[in-house]
Amino acid sequence: MIEHKSFDPYSSALFTDLYELTMLQAYDAEGMTAPAVFELFFRRLPPHRNYVMVAGLEQVLSYLEHLQFTDDELAWLHQRQQFSEAFLRTLKDFRFTGDVYAMPEGTVVFENEPVLQVVAPLPEAQLIETYVLNQIHLQSVAATKAARMVTAAAGRDIVDFGSRRSHGTDAALKVARASYLAGAIGTSNVAAARLYNIPALGTMAHSYIQAHADERTAFLAFTQEFPETTLLVDTYNTLKGVQEVIDLARRLGHAFKVRAIRLDSGDLLELANASRQLLDAAGLQEVKIFASSGLDEHTIAALLKAGAPIDGFGVGTNLAVSADAPEIDFSYKLVAYDGQPRMKLSSSKGILPGRKQVFRRVSSGQMCGDVIAQFDESLEGEALLQPVMRHGTRLAAGYVPLDKVREYAGTQREALPPELQRLEDVKVPYHIAFSAALQATTAQLQHDLERAT
Amino acid sequence: MIEHKSFDPYSSALFTDLYELTMLQAYDAEGMTAPAVFELFFRRLPPHRNYVMVAGLEQVLSYLEHLQFTDDELAWLHQRQQFSEAFLRTLKDFRFTGDVYAMPEGTVVFENEPVLQVVAPLPEAQLIETYVLNQIHLQSVAATKAARMVTAAAGRDIVDFGSRRSHGTDAALKVARASYLAGAIGTSNVAAARLYNIPALGTMAHSYIQAHADERTAFLAFTQEFPETTLLVDTYNTLKGVQEVIDLARRLGHAFKVRAIRLDSGDLLELANASRQLLDAAGLQEVKIFASSGLDEHTIAALLKAGAPIDGFGVGTNLAVSADAPEIDFSYKLVAYDGQPRMKLSSSKGILPGRKQVFRRVSSGQMCGDVIAQFDESLEGEALLQPVMRHGTRLAAGYVPLDKVREYAGTQREALPPELQRLEDVKVPYHIAFSAALQATTAQLQHDLERAT
Repeated sequence: MIEHKSFDPYSSALFTDLYELTMLQAYDAEGMTAPAVFELFFRRLPPHRNYVMVAGLEQVLSYLEHLQFTDDELAWLHQRQQFSEAFLRTLKDFRFTGDVYAMPEGTVVFENEPVLQVVAPLPEAQLIETYVLNQIHLQSVAATKAARMVTAAAGRDIVDFGSRRSHGTDAALKVARASYLAGAIGTSNVAAARLYNIPALGTMAHSYIQAHADERTAFLAFTQEFPETTLLVDTYNTLKGVQEVIDLARRLGHAFKVRAIRLDSGDLLELANASRQLLDAAGLQEVKIFASSGLDEHTIAALLKAGAPIDGFGVGTNLAVSADAPEIDFSYKLVAYDGQPRMKLSSSKGILPGRKQVFRRVSSGQMCGDVIAQFDESLEGEALLQPVMRHGTRLAAGYVPLDKVREYAGTQREALPPELQRLEDVKVPYHIAFSAALQATTAQLQHDLERAT
Repeated sequence: MIEHKSFDPYSSALFTDLYELTMLQAYDAEGMTAPAVFELFFRRLPPHRNYVMVAGLEQVLSYLEHLQFTDDELAWLHQRQQFSEAFLRTLKDFRFTGDVYAMPEGTVVFENEPVLQVVAPLPEAQLIETYVLNQIHLQSVAATKAARMVTAAAGRDIVDFGSRRSHGTDAALKVARASYLAGAIGTSNVAAARLYNIPALGTMAHSYIQAHADERTAFLAFTQEFPETTLLVDTYNTLKGVQEVIDLARRLGHAFKVRAIRLDSGDLLELANASRQLLDAAGLQEVKIFASSGLDEHTIAALLKAGAPIDGFGVGTNLAVSADAPEIDFSYKLVAYDGQPRMKLSSSKGILPGRKQVFRRVSSGQMCGDVIAQFDESLEGEALLQPVMRHGTRLAAGYVPLDKVREYAGTQREALPPELQRLEDVKVPYHIAFSAALQATTAQLQHDLERAT
């Protein structure tokens, strides 16, 4: 695969919007290489979300560490005849040499809070916009959705079954990672399990049952290979499927080690209750019930509220695409250049100027309110943006093992005010204030710009 | 990047659900390697969609051609201690040796119509489920959304600006491909432009303007590098921005070659009208107006209906995630094994048994109705499933250059009954019938299964 070595589209420096490159040529021609500060934030919470759980930092830092143009990519850019020779020569030595400040993955965040801050020569900070947004957006969408499902499951297991419906291979991998980070116990995706060292889970599909003469033959054959399996019981008639599992237990005796049945269609409450009764009556109390089939946090919560005896949930589509909120309006915006705060005034798309910090007050393990401030202020509470990369090299804080991230994400969920943890839209949003100094700078710069233009 | 050569998670044989591998071990132990037929279809049109435009076949065929387990991947599977030695040895020689029948990319399809059919030894047809679904799903979601936007734009340009909000890098690349296929004129994503040889488009972001002392300086500097550019005019005050473009034209005289302005916020109808008036009054009739900012097919149609003088639209988020319908309920199901039709009865998730074909009647270039039939029937109309791969090798029909696909997709859109082309939900759906033979087989098999279970 020679092609791949010289141009891997998934991690290429060409994974960028064309305008980043045209701007870079102009910056180069103008000698505009002073330090810039860009911040990543969203302006509005997505619908049906009381918070966003931020994720994806690991992939961003890895990308920045390895970012460079290959000879092959430069030759292709040259062929396009759009860029100057002088500019393309500068790309040969292009590396990311800047600093990155970020909130740790798993942090819960709100409107206008910078979750990532890049301080680098203007062209470097500019080029990376597309990839940084793409990765933080995807994983934050997925982690947030998964966190809601974990809350709804109230201690039962959540497993990512979404790879077939996620938007492409990268999404499948990253949804597996982000949902594990947010509290899911594993994924069905084997490549993701290997890449991120997270548990791979799953047993059989309907096709396995269908390919056999009947369900009984299929169950017996499968348990001979995998005794401690989960048997899928709804291919033909769910309760008859459960009866087949019970018959199998009788025939196998002590050799019966099946751990669970899976329900994948029909009225899950009714079928789970009836299956539990059948299993218990047959002395199979230890056989668990696992459910899937178009589940989301609301159906999970409703099933458990109704007392459904379900021990785990496989979630597919609704997790994979975050169906009720597939996007968050993350932007990556210039807030300072060459030491001067910058903003824009575009209607309803303004920017808070200058490099910022977010201070969060926590009392008795519970979040009480955030203040968005100028970076050099010292206010009460924890400063959420921390250095993770300096001069293009990751700091220790930039390496966080996924299990540590998962632990931290769990404490973040629990630190949310109880009403924000609910699945329903919150009535009173989390309290976010702007510091007096930030307000003064914003007003002054707005005044200056309006007078100038 | 040694890691990448031995395990590329984006195209690995491990990009599969764990249950495919456990089923494969059971099939192997049982000697179940007879030919199976799997079909890919959806049960219901997504909300707000009168048709689905299928896409992604190219990536599926390329995957099947190269599918194999690397030593490194096998070693990892071995480490998991979940699989038998005997089974892992069989994976060493695993290749896809089957046949694939498919509808050409760009075909418009409806409920229950198989869009892809795999005829292969059961384990081969089984393993590929996750990747096949993942790729066809993503690109069909994107092509369908893009086709609606192309319809709405009624001849004006549509450009994919979605990479920053698409779900990951693979989605960014494939959304660019699928939207070009569906009629967009290009993408902002440089890696996608290179990978698929499609036009890359874009000029400048707000950060470029902000980084300069003022808009005038920025416009002048940028046009010196790229005279035939598009200038972004809404950073501070849109109409003042337009006035700066006019002033620039006066100063540059014949050297002024700016092709367009871009509006990215505010009331686009009002601003486009006012901008057009200002430009025309200054003799700049040839400067076009390009708009972006949260656009979808409905806002595009409304702008044009109101007479907005907009020549092209950049669409981001709503295209990237297909916000109003981010998923299609595609399934990949076993319909025959070892020459026998197969089905399942799971409530509301049944399967039409047996290998099938779709016959489409077209009259005067317009689609009149489809019949879903048994594969060996000969009915009136065009048989939509055509062979594209035989014994694991692509046939000529399996290689279609993207521009040919784009052309075909255009004729498909135009062949749709006019009411199905509309953006509103259709009142009378497209006519789909089941052949008498298919109905008889279904009834018979259902009867047999219900009696047996």
